[in-house]
Amino acid sequence: MTTEPVNRQWLLARRPRGAVTEADFTWHEAPVPEPAEGEVLVRVLVLSADPTQRGWIAGDTYLPAVRINEVVRSLGFGRVVASRHPGFAPGDLVSGLLGWQDYALIGTGAAATLGKVPPGTSAEHALGVLGLNGWTAYFGLLDVGRPQPGETVVVSGAAGATGALVGQIAKIKGCRVIGIAGGPDKCGWLTGTAGLDAAIDYKSENVAARLAELCPKGIDVYFDNVGGPILEAALGRLALRGRVVLCGGIAHYNDTAPPTGPANYLNLIVQRGRMEGFIVLDYAARLPEAIGPLMGWLAEGRLILPIDMQHGLEAAPATLMRLFDGRNQGKQLLRIAD
Amino acid sequence: MTTEPVNRQWLLARRPRGAVTEADFTWHEAPVPEPAEGEVLVRVLVLSADPTQRGWIAGDTYLPAVRINEVVRSLGFGRVVASRHPGFAPGDLVSGLLGWQDYALIGTGAAATLGKVPPGTSAEHALGVLGLNGWTAYFGLLDVGRPQPGETVVVSGAAGATGALVGQIAKIKGCRVIGIAGGPDKCGWLTGTAGLDAAIDYKSENVAARLAELCPKGIDVYFDNVGGPILEAALGRLALRGRVVLCGGIAHYNDTAPPTGPANYLNLIVQRGRMEGFIVLDYAARLPEAIGPLMGWLAEGRLILPIDMQHGLEAAPATLMRLFDGRNQGKQLLRIAD
Repeated sequence: MTTEPVNRQWLLARRPRGAVTEADFTWHEAPVPEPAEGEVLVRVLVLSADPTQRGWIAGDTYLPAVRINEVVRSLGFGRVVASRHPGFAPGDLVSGLLGWQDYALIGTGAAATLGKVPPGTSAEHALGVLGLNGWTAYFGLLDVGRPQPGETVVVSGAAGATGALVGQIAKIKGCRVIGIAGGPDKCGWLTGTAGLDAAIDYKSENVAARLAELCPKGIDVYFDNVGGPILEAALGRLALRGRVVLCGGIAHYNDTAPPTGPANYLNLIVQRGRMEGFIVLDYAARLPEAIGPLMGWLAEGRLILPIDMQHGLEAAPATLMRLFDGRNQGKQLLRIAD
Repeated sequence: MTTEPVNRQWLLARRPRGAVTEADFTWHEAPVPEPAEGEVLVRVLVLSADPTQRGWIAGDTYLPAVRINEVVRSLGFGRVVASRHPGFAPGDLVSGLLGWQDYALIGTGAAATLGKVPPGTSAEHALGVLGLNGWTAYFGLLDVGRPQPGETVVVSGAAGATGALVGQIAKIKGCRVIGIAGGPDKCGWLTGTAGLDAAIDYKSENVAARLAELCPKGIDVYFDNVGGPILEAALGRLALRGRVVLCGGIAHYNDTAPPTGPANYLNLIVQRGRMEGFIVLDYAARLPEAIGPLMGWLAEGRLILPIDMQHGLEAAPATLMRLFDGRNQGKQLLRIAD
């Protein structure tokens, strides 16, 4: 007598108010589904935790909101276990929107968003440097921010998965780079391993004063992952024709009240500055442009992304919550199967 | 016995705190100066009142602040009465930074900013459609905002000197145009004489609700002259890849506390939007690009700028103050001599 395999899942119980909590999710066990014509069944191995997931469960954003009692949307890495889709065969390694579950059934429409991972690529690389974080850093910095060699680039959330790559790519491009992060460990990593020119610890230092010291000629490109007072401090130090790349606003994601906007936004007039938002999904057609350089820099050891790996599907809510209190150092992942 | 001519002037007495008041200025009478080598003496005929003057007297901005006891900086139109500069002769009509005074002595350096006005050009045109307002509307809308035919353009301060021209130029370029202004007279002018598609009276209507009605596909270009809650309402309705042109923030200029920033600035990420500031002085080298089209549209009757003319140098502070309580309809000028 064999035990029927079970698909363990986390469903969205309610939309979060303020900070994400475990009570926003419900544990659920369902039978493992069979793929219909055009569908692929994926065994999920590693899940990615990303700040944007807060937005996906809170309401409609650039993607429709996850519905109540639907599996929580998440990027993940897995192995095809059954396929009735001509593009995928059992054993293929894939990444895509797999969700908080053991088995993901990817339908015809969504199968287009399932990407094959080249053999030999680790989950860490597939979900980090060669995944959404790498693409976001690459296009956000280079296409939206357009830094020139010798310019001063400042990045917040600099020890996070996207920020860490932004800082290193800016160095590769010949910029002076200052990272803003919370705590001495993260700051030490930025000026040590990541090779940035300076780091600011927003938990113990006056960010505006330190930016004034470190950026005597102003900030040419500010890559913002956090919003809030740090965005204001950077706007206040913008150089003539400075660019603010809006990638995220993690300082606001758990707000219950509307966030405050940057009070000094009129500095964009004085400095003839530009503040621009982007969504990496828009660059889908241009991903090949990024993949080559990212793989090259990775192979040369010029892009390093620390991995913070948690374990067990049960820990999915807690793993996501780590992002919002800044406990993660680098890319936050969750291994749910080997 | 002849009376020595007197140069009546308004000097800056103190930096304004909150709203500009007459007590921020001192009346002064001085002898009319004689031009030295390289200098030009101009009889000031008409002064322009511009919101940016609040910034010039409050502190350093994109120009160094007016110093205490210095003549208040102002654009103006006048006639050369004496010249020791090879480029100017008595009788020439000129415009430039003449200041709140009867006679302006323009030195060698600053003479570069004195422009000759073609004979036959009125002060109203020289200081309006063919002056700073026209250039600001032209480059701000077309170079920063880049509207395409058929796109929806929204402009605030739409009955003001710059806003009125922005709306009409956007119509000339084939856009759907909605103007935001205060009061039924201004709004009637926008949809009547100026030919805009719709107007919103921010004093009596809910701007966000009206924008939702009038811009079902969102706002492609928002030209902001005011900041504050109207900027927020427009950001909340931004179309995909919408552009916000930051020209000014008159709602904030008299603030004593720091202004509030747009709380929904993260909508720039969701909509992949761009918010960009500019200063028209940066376009000095490109002014010829604008002058031709502006003169052409003016001659064809396609650009109409109502003039609000006050009288007498004594009224200079009161005339400036009219801008901040929205009493001016169109271009605010002050005639100080015939």
